[in-house]
Amino acid sequence: MTLPKAVKIVEVGPRDGLQNEKDFVSTATKIELINRLSAAGFPNIESASFVSPKWVPQMGDGAEVMAGIERRAGAIYSVLTPNLRGFEGALAARADEIVIFGAASEAFSQKNINCSIAESIERFVPVAQAAKEHGIRIRGSVSCSLGCPYQGEVPVASVVDVVERFAALGCDEIDIADTIGVGTPRRTREVFEAVTKVFPRERLSGHFHDTYGQALANIYAALEEGIAIFHASVAGLGGCPYAKGATGNVATEDVLYLMNGLGIHTGIDLNQVVAAGDFISTAIGRANVSRAGKALLAKQRSEPACA
Amino acid sequence: MTLPKAVKIVEVGPRDGLQNEKDFVSTATKIELINRLSAAGFPNIESASFVSPKWVPQMGDGAEVMAGIERRAGAIYSVLTPNLRGFEGALAARADEIVIFGAASEAFSQKNINCSIAESIERFVPVAQAAKEHGIRIRGSVSCSLGCPYQGEVPVASVVDVVERFAALGCDEIDIADTIGVGTPRRTREVFEAVTKVFPRERLSGHFHDTYGQALANIYAALEEGIAIFHASVAGLGGCPYAKGATGNVATEDVLYLMNGLGIHTGIDLNQVVAAGDFISTAIGRANVSRAGKALLAKQRSEPACA
Repeated sequence: MTLPKAVKIVEVGPRDGLQNEKDFVSTATKIELINRLSAAGFPNIESASFVSPKWVPQMGDGAEVMAGIERRAGAIYSVLTPNLRGFEGALAARADEIVIFGAASEAFSQKNINCSIAESIERFVPVAQAAKEHGIRIRGSVSCSLGCPYQGEVPVASVVDVVERFAALGCDEIDIADTIGVGTPRRTREVFEAVTKVFPRERLSGHFHDTYGQALANIYAALEEGIAIFHASVAGLGGCPYAKGATGNVATEDVLYLMNGLGIHTGIDLNQVVAAGDFISTAIGRANVSRAGKALLAKQRSEPACA
Repeated sequence: MTLPKAVKIVEVGPRDGLQNEKDFVSTATKIELINRLSAAGFPNIESASFVSPKWVPQMGDGAEVMAGIERRAGAIYSVLTPNLRGFEGALAARADEIVIFGAASEAFSQKNINCSIAESIERFVPVAQAAKEHGIRIRGSVSCSLGCPYQGEVPVASVVDVVERFAALGCDEIDIADTIGVGTPRRTREVFEAVTKVFPRERLSGHFHDTYGQALANIYAALEEGIAIFHASVAGLGGCPYAKGATGNVATEDVLYLMNGLGIHTGIDLNQVVAAGDFISTAIGRANVSRAGKALLAKQRSEPACA
């Protein structure tokens, strides 16, 4: 077993996390969060979404957020773009990377956007072309890769099919996303084993949710498959829209603690991330759900320390 | 990679979990919890502690608990015995197995019981002899196997040393316990690789805490080392005495969800365990910290379901 020596951690809290928080988070708070994450050393931060504010009011201030943040040289600031109009916004906001979405589950695609998987990805053709013309990176995210809230089991072949479609669109990076956190390590390895046959391993990422507590075990299993890009959300921002009170995105602090313990380089300062997680949890009045974050904060605040 | 086809899950919530809960839990509630866990199919339940009620008032009703439970044929009901007096209590209570403790950390041993590791284990000689005479199983638990709240790093050789001492005492089973949850998968594998050289793999167990969110990744890593006995606490009962507000024992529901996903046989009904976790959390007015437990309860209570 040889694990990667270094991994890229993509911080998705400011977009994927906050999008699932109920109350509107002020633009200033979003900007401070992103600035703190940049300072902590993240090479890639999913920062905003250029979707219609009618659908996602939480993300209505994407242009202001992107204009207000201090960008660290070399870091990638990604934004979601569902269509050409969103792409225009991303372009004006000087996004480094756009993110497009497709589900590996036909039932999910039909229920969520009322069209087939194939149609949904076809719609991104003009967006991808525009991004290529402007030299902007494209990331494709394959949701429901390990299971679907509507159809349950998702065939590995469906995941491979969506990865191939995203590859054909020219995606620079493709996320295997366990949107509802139902995956376990064996399935995780099976899916990555299959998709690495059709897309370069070093440009595939794992996006895991901790809804059933499996995220870190799945990340470890993915590392064993040579995967070296992982998504995480500071303080575990964002819940599971399919189960009230359940956990959503895996917490960044927990992922960093894992990587540090494995001796895998991330370039990110865990203590600064713990502080950023404490900042945003306090700012929005939400429980910090990172276990490592809570333990390290408790350690700072009391004695005897927990290690 | 070949994982075990079946594992034994030792439910430690009624003892290790409840012992770390602040308010006294009634004897009737403890009995109902154990009965529910027996009905769910656990082959082994850590049920009580025969320590001085002066030191651990929460466990002062061990005799009543053991007398009140309905025992499932073939299941093992374990109790903690710090000394001969405790052993007499265990014997009178018809315990199937006694549990004795030793730390792999010299600093922890000195700080907690004011003697060296070697002395602390020497003190168990008469207890172990008495257990052997009465045909009662002996389990030895090696605390701080992956790290210590006082000395930090714990050498692998220290863990091996304690395992050898427990083996010499005649222990039937030995737990490698990450008392403060600081371990990560590489270290977990290193420790198990070392201890399996001095004690049979099939009689070694992994006792993990989720304080830094690493428990399931560590369990998965231990499975890869062929370990097939794991401890878990329903609803994640018990906190971390070294960090207020932090998580303690890994939640049984999360461990069972992992095993089910890996196709590993446990003989335990996850749904009954989820119900037992809901019962005890409600009964003692404490948040259920099992992620799988919360997700499955949310799924039962609302639609659309999370998978």
